[in-house]
Amino acid sequence: MNEHTPTAAVLIIGNEILSGRTQDANVTHIAKKLGAVGIRLAEVRVVPDSEDEIAGAVNALRACYTYVLTTGGIGPTHDDITTDSIAKAYGVAVSEHPEARRRLMAHYATSNTTVNAARLRMARIPDGAVLINNGVSGAPGFYIGNVYVMAGVPNIMQAMLEAVLPTLQHGPAYLSQSVSGYVTESMVAEGLASIAVRYPQLDIGSYPWQHEERWGTTLVARGTDQAAIKAAVEEILALVKSYDSAPVIDISPKI
Amino acid sequence: MNEHTPTAAVLIIGNEILSGRTQDANVTHIAKKLGAVGIRLAEVRVVPDSEDEIAGAVNALRACYTYVLTTGGIGPTHDDITTDSIAKAYGVAVSEHPEARRRLMAHYATSNTTVNAARLRMARIPDGAVLINNGVSGAPGFYIGNVYVMAGVPNIMQAMLEAVLPTLQHGPAYLSQSVSGYVTESMVAEGLASIAVRYPQLDIGSYPWQHEERWGTTLVARGTDQAAIKAAVEEILALVKSYDSAPVIDISPKI
Repeated sequence: MNEHTPTAAVLIIGNEILSGRTQDANVTHIAKKLGAVGIRLAEVRVVPDSEDEIAGAVNALRACYTYVLTTGGIGPTHDDITTDSIAKAYGVAVSEHPEARRRLMAHYATSNTTVNAARLRMARIPDGAVLINNGVSGAPGFYIGNVYVMAGVPNIMQAMLEAVLPTLQHGPAYLSQSVSGYVTESMVAEGLASIAVRYPQLDIGSYPWQHEERWGTTLVARGTDQAAIKAAVEEILALVKSYDSAPVIDISPKI
Repeated sequence: MNEHTPTAAVLIIGNEILSGRTQDANVTHIAKKLGAVGIRLAEVRVVPDSEDEIAGAVNALRACYTYVLTTGGIGPTHDDITTDSIAKAYGVAVSEHPEARRRLMAHYATSNTTVNAARLRMARIPDGAVLINNGVSGAPGFYIGNVYVMAGVPNIMQAMLEAVLPTLQHGPAYLSQSVSGYVTESMVAEGLASIAVRYPQLDIGSYPWQHEERWGTTLVARGTDQAAIKAAVEEILALVKSYDSAPVIDISPKI
């Protein structure tokens, strides 16, 4: 967690998340992928399908973080307004991008699909933006400045993220290790606080859960210092074992 | 969607969401419950366990929306800093709340648990806040101004939300109905756009999916005008049937 660690925000464009119809399926995936290359996910926002809301959030987030990754709203239908909203945020026009059009035409030729106006809408890209490859369905994402615009459909988003990740600034990978036992948070709170003080370079977290009516807690050490994680987890394990003789522990620090 | 519809934001306090360790389980539930009583969920933010980040987000959100609901960070461990962060946002002190202490003592007496310093930490409440009942584990939530502070553990959060909902300003319930078929978004985009223009009082959304390698789309009409939803869905159904003779349709508008 030094000052040179790159940071990121995820902006989810999604009426369907805000209505409760759809459970977001992208944040967990993006968070793990960013952590693995040492980019700290610092904020997530979900905003409705509204140009002003999207542009406002993009401008707020791109000023605060190294990268902003957006998901959703770049398809062919009337409610896909992300491209225009990003252009608005940057004060640029949207034009048909020749290479985006070429990729769409090639994709539709392969799949024997007729090109129509709705499909060509997906070749509209903000001026000055660079395409992000879409290995699944042809229609590209794009980035402009530090804002990376990806699809919302999980397998397409994941393909775009794989194309983007190697181009980003990396830091040391975040690793974590956890101990889970049938202890309540209140039992271990004091001991855990003193461990957290001794490992200021780590995030030491405590997460309660219930299993078959019994309360338990998972204690997590997370950071970029593998030796510190191992040492902290040994102390956490000793703490938990004073209440639960058979806690479950991760084998080794992992991404 | 008139100007008198109450609005809400959800603020998730959660390093564990941002690290990708945990999938948020609360937004979908809260979104549906709010929609049912006519409160429009307008934004969701996830911020890390940091007093400044939490206080900053609370102050930004409470100025924009009728209500702010927070989840997480009110337990007994060192990383539970929501109470202090909310107090910071409002510029008030935190004190042991006599009624919160009484409820904790009563809960621990019933469960034969010794009260310790960590447990009593959960009786610390910002000055001027009002308690929210916790029917599950004793430790109350609270509200101050238009900010409602709830636990992050789903069953406790849900119990607190049930206690809060009847006290909030309600609007007409949001209903939705959907048609799902093996059509691509691009096939129906033009027809759907013209339906959306004829029903400006509704959100008409289009959500693609894949099932056994085939692409399909779910088309959703959502709003507070039940007659308009039924009429729009009849038009959507006719549109989809021109490509897929056996689409799946919701029986009736529902919350």
